[in-house]
Amino acid sequence: MFRTMTRAAALATALALPLAAAAQEGDTAPNGVVTLYPDGMFPPTGTWNLATRAGDFVYVAGMRGIVPETNTLAEGNEARVRQAFVNMQTIAASQGATLQDAVRIVVYVTDMYRYRPIVNQIQEELWAGRPYPPRTIIEVDRLNQDDIVEVEGTFYAPRS
Amino acid sequence: MFRTMTRAAALATALALPLAAAAQEGDTAPNGVVTLYPDGMFPPTGTWNLATRAGDFVYVAGMRGIVPETNTLAEGNEARVRQAFVNMQTIAASQGATLQDAVRIVVYVTDMYRYRPIVNQIQEELWAGRPYPPRTIIEVDRLNQDDIVEVEGTFYAPRS
Amino acid sequence: MFRTMTRAAALATALALPLAAAAQEGDTAPNGVVTLYPDGMFPPTGTWNLATRAGDFVYVAGMRGIVPETNTLAEGNEARVRQAFVNMQTIAASQGATLQDAVRIVVYVTDMYRYRPIVNQIQEELWAGRPYPPRTIIEVDRLNQDDIVEVEGTFYAPRS
Repeated sequence: MFRTMTRAAALATALALPLAAAAQEGDTAPNGVVTLYPDGMFPPTGTWNLATRAGDFVYVAGMRGIVPETNTLAEGNEARVRQAFVNMQTIAASQGATLQDAVRIVVYVTDMYRYRPIVNQIQEELWAGRPYPPRTIIEVDRLNQDDIVEVEGTFYAPRS
Repeated sequence: MFRTMTRAAALATALALPLAAAAQEGDTAPNGVVTLYPDGMFPPTGTWNLATRAGDFVYVAGMRGIVPETNTLAEGNEARVRQAFVNMQTIAASQGATLQDAVRIVVYVTDMYRYRPIVNQIQEELWAGRPYPPRTIIEVDRLNQDDIVEVEGTFYAPRS
Repeated sequence: MFRTMTRAAALATALALPLAAAAQEGDTAPNGVVTLYPDGMFPPTGTWNLATRAGDFVYVAGMRGIVPETNTLAEGNEARVRQAFVNMQTIAASQGATLQDAVRIVVYVTDMYRYRPIVNQIQEELWAGRPYPPRTIIEVDRLNQDDIVEVEGTFYAPRS
């Protein structure tokens, strides 16, 4: 399931830009759930995948600030949070959805006072005036790899 | 995006009644996600909105016990929890959905032993004999404003 | 709403097998949400139900490792985690959905280092080569009954 990154994808990643819609659609279950392997993303290394499509909805796994190009966590809290949201954005874009097409996000932080302001700032930057989605934000005990922020997004991307 | 509350809305709020279906539908994204600004609700003051509609589903942001009329937290644990659920109910009602149309709720509490019984009691009161939705309830480290309970609901409200 | 378990269901449970698709569909709300009472499952004893169907989606409540046959928690961490996933699987199966039809799961553990490896192992076993769904996994403060793992799944099961 690993896809090597294209040069364009690597460049877009380096610039923290969402990739142009480039859907790699993999396995389709009998009932119609499509497992997604978007170009330019890191390969999931455990018992999970990056996203699915079912009907008109796209379900993105909890995203952390892993830089696809290097498959390591972004350095610095602000860069880390931005990368988490950009990863979500990249996956949504592969199905023709923008951040404005998020129907809901859930944000998990390990310190509400430290990281919520950064999340707010990054959302302002990335949404850039478009309406924000409903959000639930909670402080949890621990994330994988003792990370600081994880964001889980659901998107609406009707097939035309 | 702020809407001043109507007198009827203020009254309904004071009585902790769900408002009659009064949808303020705002921005619609190209893909069709509708950001909702229900009458009688407090204005979200950060990087989030109260709810979206996409297709036949309504996604409500994590609701806490903020009294719309005063935009402050309800006093007392029971009143606080009731208000959180009533806020969710009000938003759903604006799209023609009742509590019976919840497909799932997730409840976040900061003390399972103290607040779960209150959540149960308020649900009994508000559902009033109608079947309860699937629920996930977890104790988290912290909610925004060091609040005690937050509830996130997803509703089914097909456009007829 | 309590349904006594059939012998077949009890056997399947004892063997930790998903039950054959046996949907008990109960109350249907005016808008069309169907509350599900799958055969062979334990009865929910509080202000919640096991699952709903709305349109083509099935929403399963957060499942813990309760053995339906005895209505008590499975003994041992591995058995407990397996039972939680099998419960989710059983409920999905009652609507014609397999684990491959999960569009998303959220896994709540109370110790990331101790229980995440067990979750991974059980998922490998149960998915058995089929693509995994997107996953969000977080460590929380506490689950109901001081349990160790809870899993919440959403499934796609279009009515043909």
